[in-house]
Amino acid sequence: MAAAWMAHCGIHARIVDKRNSKIFCGQADGLQCRSLEIFDSLGFADRAWKEANHMIEICMWNPGPDGIIHRSDRLPDTIVGQSRFQQIVLHQGRIERFFLDNIKKYSNDGIRIERGVLPESLEIDETKVDDDDAYPVTVKLRQLSDEEAAPKQQETASKGASDGLFRSSLNQEDDEEDLIAQSKARSGDEEIVHAKYVIGCDGARSWTRRTLGFELQGEATDFIWGVMDIIPITDFPDIRMRCAIHSAENGSLMNIPRENGLTRLYIQLKEVTPDASGRADRSKITPENIFSAAQKILSPYKIDYEYCDWWTAYQIGQRVGTNFDAHNRVFLAGDAVHTHSPKAGQGMNVSMQDCFNLGWKVALVAKGIAKRSILSTYQSERREIAQALIDFDHRFSRLFSGRPAKDVMDAEGVSMEVFKDAFLKGNMFASGLSVDYGPSNLVAKSSAQTLATGLPLGMRFNSFKVLNQSDARPWHFQERLKADGRFRIVLFAGNILDPSQKTRVDAFCAALDQPRSFLRRATRDDAPIDSVIDILTIHSAKRVDTELLRDFPAILHPFNTRTGWDYNKVFVDDVSYHEGFGDAYKNYGVDKEKGCVVAVRPDQYVGWVGTLEDFDGLQAYFEGCLAI
Amino acid sequence: MAAAWMAHCGIHARIVDKRNSKIFCGQADGLQCRSLEIFDSLGFADRAWKEANHMIEICMWNPGPDGIIHRSDRLPDTIVGQSRFQQIVLHQGRIERFFLDNIKKYSNDGIRIERGVLPESLEIDETKVDDDDAYPVTVKLRQLSDEEAAPKQQETASKGASDGLFRSSLNQEDDEEDLIAQSKARSGDEEIVHAKYVIGCDGARSWTRRTLGFELQGEATDFIWGVMDIIPITDFPDIRMRCAIHSAENGSLMNIPRENGLTRLYIQLKEVTPDASGRADRSKITPENIFSAAQKILSPYKIDYEYCDWWTAYQIGQRVGTNFDAHNRVFLAGDAVHTHSPKAGQGMNVSMQDCFNLGWKVALVAKGIAKRSILSTYQSERREIAQALIDFDHRFSRLFSGRPAKDVMDAEGVSMEVFKDAFLKGNMFASGLSVDYGPSNLVAKSSAQTLATGLPLGMRFNSFKVLNQSDARPWHFQERLKADGRFRIVLFAGNILDPSQKTRVDAFCAALDQPRSFLRRATRDDAPIDSVIDILTIHSAKRVDTELLRDFPAILHPFNTRTGWDYNKVFVDDVSYHEGFGDAYKNYGVDKEKGCVVAVRPDQYVGWVGTLEDFDGLQAYFEGCLAI
Repeated sequence: MAAAWMAHCGIHARIVDKRNSKIFCGQADGLQCRSLEIFDSLGFADRAWKEANHMIEICMWNPGPDGIIHRSDRLPDTIVGQSRFQQIVLHQGRIERFFLDNIKKYSNDGIRIERGVLPESLEIDETKVDDDDAYPVTVKLRQLSDEEAAPKQQETASKGASDGLFRSSLNQEDDEEDLIAQSKARSGDEEIVHAKYVIGCDGARSWTRRTLGFELQGEATDFIWGVMDIIPITDFPDIRMRCAIHSAENGSLMNIPRENGLTRLYIQLKEVTPDASGRADRSKITPENIFSAAQKILSPYKIDYEYCDWWTAYQIGQRVGTNFDAHNRVFLAGDAVHTHSPKAGQGMNVSMQDCFNLGWKVALVAKGIAKRSILSTYQSERREIAQALIDFDHRFSRLFSGRPAKDVMDAEGVSMEVFKDAFLKGNMFASGLSVDYGPSNLVAKSSAQTLATGLPLGMRFNSFKVLNQSDARPWHFQERLKADGRFRIVLFAGNILDPSQKTRVDAFCAALDQPRSFLRRATRDDAPIDSVIDILTIHSAKRVDTELLRDFPAILHPFNTRTGWDYNKVFVDDVSYHEGFGDAYKNYGVDKEKGCVVAVRPDQYVGWVGTLEDFDGLQAYFEGCLAI
Repeated sequence: MAAAWMAHCGIHARIVDKRNSKIFCGQADGLQCRSLEIFDSLGFADRAWKEANHMIEICMWNPGPDGIIHRSDRLPDTIVGQSRFQQIVLHQGRIERFFLDNIKKYSNDGIRIERGVLPESLEIDETKVDDDDAYPVTVKLRQLSDEEAAPKQQETASKGASDGLFRSSLNQEDDEEDLIAQSKARSGDEEIVHAKYVIGCDGARSWTRRTLGFELQGEATDFIWGVMDIIPITDFPDIRMRCAIHSAENGSLMNIPRENGLTRLYIQLKEVTPDASGRADRSKITPENIFSAAQKILSPYKIDYEYCDWWTAYQIGQRVGTNFDAHNRVFLAGDAVHTHSPKAGQGMNVSMQDCFNLGWKVALVAKGIAKRSILSTYQSERREIAQALIDFDHRFSRLFSGRPAKDVMDAEGVSMEVFKDAFLKGNMFASGLSVDYGPSNLVAKSSAQTLATGLPLGMRFNSFKVLNQSDARPWHFQERLKADGRFRIVLFAGNILDPSQKTRVDAFCAALDQPRSFLRRATRDDAPIDSVIDILTIHSAKRVDTELLRDFPAILHPFNTRTGWDYNKVFVDDVSYHEGFGDAYKNYGVDKEKGCVVAVRPDQYVGWVGTLEDFDGLQAYFEGCLAI
C-alpha cells in the first residue's frame, strides 16, 4: 500500500522482503467496505469485487434448550446503506497480485519487490532529521540465498496442505538474527542504502520495531484457535454463509465462505491450553485435531473434506505498539504496531489503512508540497485506530470464546443476546467506515460542520451518485476522488442559476484565481492549475437548464491549449436516465441553494468545511498543511 | 469472436490475418447493449465498461427559423430499462485486446492470431461435406514478409495522423492477388491446412467470398462522408454528447464523444461527389477539407483541434451477401456478407454477433454434441438480421444526409420530425436487443410462450436480479448464462414450499434423472451431469423459509465427491439486502405458484418453453438439435 502511494505520486522507493515469493494460500482474506473504497481510489476494486466471494448474510447458531445448535438469527453481513461496496472475501495472494500490477502500472521508475533481501542494520542520524534535503536513515541490506529466503511453509508443502504455523502467533522464534548471521558468512551480498524515510511493515515480530527499541504492549489469553481452508462436504445448511456458531460444550466456530468453493473455519481448540509459561503444546496442533474439534462443534451436522488448502493456529492476544515512528523518519505499520485475533477480518484491512494514511503524507513531504509536520498525524491518527481495534477484539474474542450461557442464571456463560449485540456494534467498526480522525493541521474540526452534516470532518468522504454536467454520465462521487496525491476542494455551488448565488460562486472563484491564493502558491507556474489541488464542483440546478461554459467560471473547468476545456470537473445533483437519483445535496446535508465548500485530503478524509465567503478559512487550512 | 467460442469450447482452431498488427486507432468504436451482454458471457464486459466512454444522451441540433443550428431535442442514448448495460464507445483496438486476452485465458492449445499469413487457395471436397469425420476443406496458406504484411496506413503514419483510407469503401483495390503473386516468388513459405470448417471474416472485399464465387448485392449512393477522431477545442456546448446535427445548407454531422478526451466526427462532404462511374475524387479528401466542412456545419460555434488520432472517408452504400455459407463447411461473417454506413455504430456489433451465433454451433457439431443440421440456422438466422441492418441503414442514412426541410411545404427537404422518429425507432434496433430468430430445430416457437411472456422464444434471455439460495448473493441472472458451450434449462420451480408444486418439481426432476432422458443421453457416463446441459433453478418461495438440501432434488444441485454439493445452481426471486428486488417472476411473466421450464441456447437465446409436465416436449427439443 505504501509503495502504491509512492508509485501514484511519482516518488522513488524500494521495497525489500526477506521472503522469496508472495503468498499463494492462506493468510488474510476479508476485505471491508472501506478497503474496497480505497482499492477503487487506486484503480483495482473491480478486480477484487469480481473474483471475491461476496458475504451477504451472517447466521448465528446457538444451542437450544436441548443443547443442539440451531440458527437463532440472520443479519446482513454489511450494514445496509453505508457504502457502495459490501464486505467480500478473497485470499491475500490475489490482493498482493492486484497491488503488484497497480504499482507496475503507475510507477515511473519501476518500483518492484526485491525478494530475498534482508535489512541487517538501520541507523538514524538524529542531527539531520529536521533537514528537508537530508537522507538521515542508513540501512544495510543483505541479499539472501534462495534457501535462506524460502519460508518454512514451502519446505513442507509437498507433504500435504500448506501450513501457516511458521507465521503463527504460536511461533515465538525470530529468524532474522539467524539469517543475518548466516548470510554474513558470505561476502559481496550487502548494500548500503541512504533513505529519507523508511516504513517497517514487517509483521508482529517486526525487526524494524525491535531495532528501534520499541515494544508491543498488551496480553495474551488462554484461548487457542485453529484455522483451516477446506472445500467442505457437509449437510450443514449455512456453509455458504458467514456463521458464528457457539456449541453447548465443545467450543465455538466461525465459518467464512471463500472463493472457489473454499470455506475458512476458525475453530476453538478447547483441548489445547497453554502451559504455565503461556506457551501451547504445538505437537497437539495438527489438522486432524483441529478438524475433529470442528466436527464436534457442528454436530449433529456432518462435515468432512477431501481438499485442504491451508491451515494454521493462533493464540488470542491483543497488543499495540508504544511508538509508531522514530523522528518521523522511520515508521511502523500493520502488525508491527498492532496484533490481535484474525476472526473479525481486521488485520489486513487496518494494516493497509495504516499505510493508506501514511503513504501520501510521506510522498507529499518528500516532494516539498506538504509541511513535514503533517507526518506527526500518522501516529495521532492511527494509534487511536489501533487501540480501538485492540479493544474491539478484546471484547469480541472473549465473547466468542466463552461458553454460551445455559439460562439467565448462568453467570459464567456468555449471553447470546450480549454476543449478538456486540456483533452488531462491531459490524460498524469492522466496516472501516467509522474511522474519525481527530483535529490536526489536516483536520479542521469546527462548527462549520453544520454546512455539510453528511460529511463529518475527520471521516471519509461518503459517496452518492451525481451526473457529469457535460455528458450526463452518473458517477459515484467517490470515483472522482482518486489516490493521485492531490488534495481536493469540492465546491457545492448550490443553485448556480440563481443570480445572487452565481455572484457568490464567481467571487469564490475570483479569490481562488488571485496570485496570492493558496491554489496559485501551491502550484508551480509551469504546472497545470489542478496538479496539487483539484477543484470539483457539484451544483444543484437542473442539468438541462445549465451549461458548462456559460454558467461556470473557467477555473472550475480549466482550458488547455492542446485538449480544450476540461469536461470532467463539474457535476450536477440530478436524476439519471438509467441509475436513479443520488440525491447528493440531501445525503451530504448541504443546502441546495447556498451550497458550501469542502476540502478533502488525498486519502478522501474531510479536512475542512466552510461557506463560500470563508475563503480566508480555506486559505488558512492549506497554509497549515502545505509548504506555501 | 469465433475463436473465443473455440477457446471456451475447447476446439482446436487457427486464426490467420494478412495484416501484421492489430488495430491501434480508428475503425469501429460503438458497443451496443447486446454486445456488452455477450462480452459479459465471455468474461470481459467489465473491462470494456471501465475503459469506455459512456454515451448517455443524444442531442439533436437543427436549423431554427433564422437558419442557425440550435438544440431541438434531448433523448436517452440507450432505451431505459432494456438491459443492465448502456451503449458505450471504445476503440476497436482495445476490444481486440480483450478478445486476445480472453482467448489466451481459455484456450487449452494456445489459439493465437498468426499474423502476416495469407490464404492463397481454398477448396471444398464436395464428396466429403456430409462426413462427420472428414476434413473436407483444404486451404493453402502463405507467410508474408514483414513488408508485405504492413498495411499502407502504417507506411504513411509518420507524416501525420493515421488515415484509414486504405480500408475505406472509397478504395476499390484488392491487394490479395498482388500479395499472392509477390509471395509466390519466394519458396518454402507455404503450408497446406485441412480443416473441418472455415470462417471467412475478411471484410467487405472478402477474399473468401470471392473465392467461393458469392457476391454482395446492393447499391451505393452519392453521399460521401468523412470521419475524424480529434481532441476538440470548441465552444459547442454538447461536444460530450452524441449529437445529430443538420445544418441548413452545409450538410450534416454526427458527434460521438470518445474515451481520453477524443471525439469522433462523422462529417457530410457536400462538396465531394462521385463521378459518372460512381467514384469519388480522392484528391479532394484531405483532413483539411473534411474539417473545414465540419466547421461550416457547426457554425456559429467554433471548433478546432491540435491533435488528430485518425481520419478516413467513405461512400454510403448498402450491400448484403447472396450466400452466408458453402455446404455448411465454409462460412462468411461480418462485412464479408453485409456492408453499410458506420454512423449507427452497427458494423462491429452485428459482425461480432454473426460469429457469436455461429461459433458455438460449429464447436458443438465438431465435438459431436450437436446435430450438423443446426449449422443451417446460421444463414437463416443471420441473413435476416443483415437484411434488417441494410434496410435500417438505407432509411437512416438518407434521412441523415438530406437537407433539413425549411417548412412543411419544402417537400425536397427532410422533416426533422420524421428524422427524430426514425432515430427513436432505430434505437431499439441499434441496441441489438430486438433480434428475434425464427423457428428452427433450435427455436421451438409455440403457444407455450404464454407461460413466460417476458422470455420470447427466439430472443435473448433478458436479465433480472435473483439471489443465490445458499449465500443470498444477488446476481443478474444473465451472469449465470456464461458462454461455455452448454445449453441450459432454467427451471422456474414456482412456490417450492407448496406440497403440490413440490410434487410437480420432484416428478420433473425424476424424469430428468432417468437413464433415457435427453440429459443422461447427452452426457458421457464419465462426465459431470452438467457438462452438456446446465440446469439452473429459480424458485419463488421466501429465501429464509427454504433450504437447499431439504427442499430441492439432488439433480438441481449435484453432489461431487471432492467438492460436495453444488451451491451455485439454485436461485430465489426475493428481496436483497443491498441491491433491491429483481422481481424476476413478474418481469419474466412466469406464474409464481406453478412456474415453467425454459430451454436456453448456449448463446442465451430462448429455445423452448413448456410446463413442468411437458417433459416429452423438452425431450423432443433436445432430440431435435443434439446428437443423441
